[in-house]
Amino acid sequence: MSYSGVGSSPGNVAVSHGGKMKLIDRKLKLTEVLLRCSATALALLALILIVTDTQVKKIFTIEKRAKYTDMKALVFLVVANGITAAYSLLQSVRCVVGSMKGSVLLNKSLAWAIFLSDQQAMAYMSVAAIAASAESGLIGIRGEEKLQWMKVCNMFGKFCNRAAGGTASALLASIAMVFVSSISAFSLFRLYGGATQRQPNDAVRK
Amino acid sequence: MSYSGVGSSPGNVAVSHGGKMKLIDRKLKLTEVLLRCSATALALLALILIVTDTQVKKIFTIEKRAKYTDMKALVFLVVANGITAAYSLLQSVRCVVGSMKGSVLLNKSLAWAIFLSDQQAMAYMSVAAIAASAESGLIGIRGEEKLQWMKVCNMFGKFCNRAAGGTASALLASIAMVFVSSISAFSLFRLYGGATQRQPNDAVRK
Repeated sequence: MSYSGVGSSPGNVAVSHGGKMKLIDRKLKLTEVLLRCSATALALLALILIVTDTQVKKIFTIEKRAKYTDMKALVFLVVANGITAAYSLLQSVRCVVGSMKGSVLLNKSLAWAIFLSDQQAMAYMSVAAIAASAESGLIGIRGEEKLQWMKVCNMFGKFCNRAAGGTASALLASIAMVFVSSISAFSLFRLYGGATQRQPNDAVRK
Repeated sequence: MSYSGVGSSPGNVAVSHGGKMKLIDRKLKLTEVLLRCSATALALLALILIVTDTQVKKIFTIEKRAKYTDMKALVFLVVANGITAAYSLLQSVRCVVGSMKGSVLLNKSLAWAIFLSDQQAMAYMSVAAIAASAESGLIGIRGEEKLQWMKVCNMFGKFCNRAAGGTASALLASIAMVFVSSISAFSLFRLYGGATQRQPNDAVRK
């Protein structure tokens, strides 16, 4: 596969591959925008589900209220999803604006910045937040008998179910981020194929 | 940056860029081998530290023993590190053998397989295992007062310190895996730059 014949004799390769590659590039851009929009919506949904999650239980005369701040992992998940939602929204806008301008390949500095923030920050942060939350959730459901950490989900079932829904939504957002980070890795590293032979250190645009 | 002049008129580009690129490729291969070997050693160290972690405490006449199986997150961390160590060792061998054979660029199928297993499986699994373990560790150190999950590290300090050491070692292994997965993304996606113009769907070797 080649991209617009960059890196070879311009005339013939551009003519033979240009149209096909433009189509693939457009499809990829569209996929990226859809994934980023999905990540925004799902992260926001997760955030709302968890922040509004509360349950009150009366045990004899004592009233007990469960809320997400009782579990530090859920606070981390809320923060992580807030960051993911805001970041994905901004990146969606950038993608749409970029597509409207017709730019297909990024310059290297921007491609590096997007790759690092997509993958090293967002994707790994999302996965870590979900894993921490899932671990706390599992202790809540099953307890850790040997450590005398008791189950709480038998008492606060509604609260736990909603938290699980929020975590599931965050998981889907994180899967979208994992795919997005692969696309941004592709957008970056394809610049190192043969694409830069004509413009060694600069932007490659078409 | 170009790689061995693949994707351009072979003579002049190969002559002008070939030597420099060979050097960069060799450095990258060496870095990959070193990172994979480090990941193997660190994951193995984490596994050993956690599996051998145990502490006995006498409370009046009752003897209490803490071991890693008491905390499910530590069991997950041990399994994840076992897989990481074995996988990284095998990949190190593949890298060394590949370097001895002198192959620089992979074929697309192999590059995809390595990218998917490095990044989508190993790197994310390591990060998830560490996050889950860190979450359990934090509960162990600070407790979750509202959920009546009590601290255990004030009683089993030695056990907790060693588990923290194991988690730190796993974290370093996971950082190595994150870098390795970036290298494998580079090795895969550079094939889509201009590198395959001469051999559209095949191995590009030199």
